[in-house]
Amino acid sequence: MYHTALLVIDMQNGFLCEKSPLFIDGAPATVPACAKVIAHCRRQGIPVFFITRAYAADGSDVEQPRRDAWETGGKPLSPGCAKEISAEMPEAFGTDEHDYRIVKPRYSAFFATELDLILRRLGIQHLILSGTTTPNCIRTTCYDAISLDYRVTVLSDCTSSKTPEIQESNLRDMANVGAEIMDSEAVLHTEIERL
Amino acid sequence: MYHTALLVIDMQNGFLCEKSPLFIDGAPATVPACAKVIAHCRRQGIPVFFITRAYAADGSDVEQPRRDAWETGGKPLSPGCAKEISAEMPEAFGTDEHDYRIVKPRYSAFFATELDLILRRLGIQHLILSGTTTPNCIRTTCYDAISLDYRVTVLSDCTSSKTPEIQESNLRDMANVGAEIMDSEAVLHTEIERL
Repeated sequence: MYHTALLVIDMQNGFLCEKSPLFIDGAPATVPACAKVIAHCRRQGIPVFFITRAYAADGSDVEQPRRDAWETGGKPLSPGCAKEISAEMPEAFGTDEHDYRIVKPRYSAFFATELDLILRRLGIQHLILSGTTTPNCIRTTCYDAISLDYRVTVLSDCTSSKTPEIQESNLRDMANVGAEIMDSEAVLHTEIERL
Repeated sequence: MYHTALLVIDMQNGFLCEKSPLFIDGAPATVPACAKVIAHCRRQGIPVFFITRAYAADGSDVEQPRRDAWETGGKPLSPGCAKEISAEMPEAFGTDEHDYRIVKPRYSAFFATELDLILRRLGIQHLILSGTTTPNCIRTTCYDAISLDYRVTVLSDCTSSKTPEIQESNLRDMANVGAEIMDSEAVLHTEIERL
């Protein structure tokens, strides 16, 4: 029985494409490392959760401070927007019938979603966080997870920010509240349940 | 009818006293500015919410990563601990019959509390955040508030961190997601509802 799950957060065209107003500079470079960790977890039977963002076509659910950029920037992550800024994920991640998919309306993967309920039923106690962006969706998920008593590991090279400074200061703060920070190489050469 | 509320978060002996394992270096220096803003809001009829932390005597509700430090450090913020590291607030804040008090179990003022319900009933749309610590309780509250569609203002000299670097990097990240950052002087010379 596994007690660990991998969360892959917001790795979607709308955050990965330079033409999107929501583009995160550091995100495209993390796709290969994320793909390796995803495949490694699937091989070991570790549940993989793809947590993604999707906005309504009329923008009624876009965060207020982001609304203008969304409206004037091609309405990324919404139905009918250009594929290059859509809610789709990189093909390199592949698909597996055992994957879980959860759409979240805000930053944290726990905010107004069924994630905690599913993790509890699966007996998950330890979350490995990957995806983007480190200061927003990764970090809010990290704090909510710690608040809910999960052990948290953040993968430094599978998460990303607009600048190296933002990446480093956020990894520091998460380490300060008890998250474990490691890179994908450490994960790939380990039996996940022994992390 | 006001639409703004002041939140004063975790300004308690357990975070303000050097002898506490939860001491935040920058926090004591913010007490005078916080006291001025609290008095200014009370004078204008702006609701003041004191959001505080309290742990059970047996530590059963302490965050897991903080448990050891709490246990060996005099059990701050719990019944029966020394007054100097207790859940009490600075006398400089005074009391007012119109103050609201909410005890929160985790970082965010919204996590497992009735704060959002009370704010909605009061018609509050704008939150001014003060207190400690900037990377944890202020920031998680900020992100939850934005997620819940509140406008957020963070007072730079009424919030605090263990180091100036942590303070600055967290103010930067909160500004990046749409929070307004200002200092207490800007607030003290303004009619709050016109901020």
